[in-house]
Amino acid sequence: MSRTRVHNFAVSLDGFGSGEPQSLEAPFGHAGQRLHEWMFATRFWGPEGATGVDDAFAQQHGAGFGAEIMGANKFGPPGWPDDPAWRGWWGEDPPFHTPTFVLTHHPREPLEMAGGTTFHFLDASPAEALEVARAAAGGLDVRIGGGAAVVRDFLAAGLVDHAHLVVVPIVLGRGTRVWDGLEALEDAYAVEAVSSPSGVTHLTLTRRR
Amino acid sequence: MSRTRVHNFAVSLDGFGSGEPQSLEAPFGHAGQRLHEWMFATRFWGPEGATGVDDAFAQQHGAGFGAEIMGANKFGPPGWPDDPAWRGWWGEDPPFHTPTFVLTHHPREPLEMAGGTTFHFLDASPAEALEVARAAAGGLDVRIGGGAAVVRDFLAAGLVDHAHLVVVPIVLGRGTRVWDGLEALEDAYAVEAVSSPSGVTHLTLTRRR
Ligand SMILES: NC(=O)c1ccc[n+]([C@@H]2O[C@H](COP(=O)([O-])OP(=O)(O)OC[C@H]3O[C@@H](n4cnc5c(N)ncnc54)[C@H](OP(=O)(O)O)[C@@H]3O)[C@@H](O)[C@H]2O)c1
Ligand SMILES: NC(=O)c1ccc[n+]([C@@H]2O[C@H](COP(=O)([O-])OP(=O)(O)OC[C@H]3O[C@@H](n4cnc5c(N)ncnc54)[C@H](OP(=O)(O)O)[C@@H]3O)[C@@H](O)[C@H]2O)c1
Repeated sequence: MSRTRVHNFAVSLDGFGSGEPQSLEAPFGHAGQRLHEWMFATRFWGPEGATGVDDAFAQQHGAGFGAEIMGANKFGPPGWPDDPAWRGWWGEDPPFHTPTFVLTHHPREPLEMAGGTTFHFLDASPAEALEVARAAAGGLDVRIGGGAAVVRDFLAAGLVDHAHLVVVPIVLGRGTRVWDGLEALEDAYAVEAVSSPSGVTHLTLTRRR
Repeated sequence: MSRTRVHNFAVSLDGFGSGEPQSLEAPFGHAGQRLHEWMFATRFWGPEGATGVDDAFAQQHGAGFGAEIMGANKFGPPGWPDDPAWRGWWGEDPPFHTPTFVLTHHPREPLEMAGGTTFHFLDASPAEALEVARAAAGGLDVRIGGGAAVVRDFLAAGLVDHAHLVVVPIVLGRGTRVWDGLEALEDAYAVEAVSSPSGVTHLTLTRRR
């Protein structure tokens, strides 16, 4: 069965999934790279990286996916819809290697990149977007790639089967909140927490059947 | 050296230290007992309780303190200042056994209870209150007992040497926020996270020297 999964989604102690303001120079705002240092240090990120619990979790981001859904603010900095030349942050061979659906109120024509990634732009509800992505995923899983607003919306709509969030021990104070509108989320999920020597805590939410 | 410490302070995934609305029947509001089930299951709480990592942390709440400071909303439900007969939640022998300073904009005469607890009512800044409590603590430590507003205010004022917070894997959605106003708290503290088989994660903040 094709599942819908979130992986490696970092959140600060105070529940922010990115800082502010977002810009071309600072995609995570004042958070900088601090939400993902745990990941940059893994073998998942590079051949010099460490194995261990952070890597074990990080690796699952890669395997078994046939499509990704992301938000407009993950795809580009504020204003990208006005720039017809914007092709995402990731260069000509983005790391998705599947059809990738960008939720936006400013849709445009699909962008075919190298390596199997095609960006499709969708103005649709989470449930509708998931249906389209699922059909494109060829029986594989669909990744909800973020940012915070999109993760939150898909959780709130009850569309996520498995979520891996990484609590990073920093207090951001401002940015985009991940947990808003998710009161009593634990009723629908078995929650596990595993802290790592790196200082982060891996939270997994597995949907109860 | 007398230290200022927070212990066993529970916080939801989304950063709330209590639910709402607080009342005589529901001191933690809609959170009920869910923020402290991990603690009720320890030997610290009762002789049938378990030992283990939760207990090891919980036990530190008890040892080495000469005074406590708490907020008005920990001392009683909304409206207690209008009830001259209110003597706290804890009966005639409260579990503090030291001078205990209640921060309130409605101070009253001290209440001498059994077992060494005397409640003093203070309308003072965190720094002033700490000075008074420290003088009363006889060289022992001062506990910042909560609720969320008081823990937050003492952290924000840079007055806390050690803090133990317990992240409980529930999303409360509403209540009193613990982390507000504490941006970049990690700059001042070494932060450790240890998850427990019970599902909670113990966070310790040790002030950098
Ligand atoms: N913490 C992590 O691990 C992680 C992972 C990935 C990304 N990020 C960061 O998260 C930030 C972005 O997150 P975010 O919460 O600001 O935004 P986001 O979730 O990336 O995107 C939200 C935006 O997408 C569009 N959108 C969302 N749902 C839609 C729908 N159903 N229909 C049409 N459009 C829809 C809307 O943009 P428009 O109305 O403008 O079209 C909305 O404002 C970035 O800083 C990114 O770097 C963090
Ligand atoms: N999560 C935990 O582990 C934990 C631990 C203990 C308690 N709690 C819960 O936390 C809740 C209470 O927390 P809370 O954040 O609502 O309130 P609180 O921190 O207990 O008290 C805040 C109140 O104390 C008074 N106060 C605070 N600082 C003051 C100052 N410098 N000078 C004068 N008065 C001052 C003010 O009340 P007035 O203006 O009304 O006088 C203020 O509204 C309760 O539900 C309690 O059961 C949770």
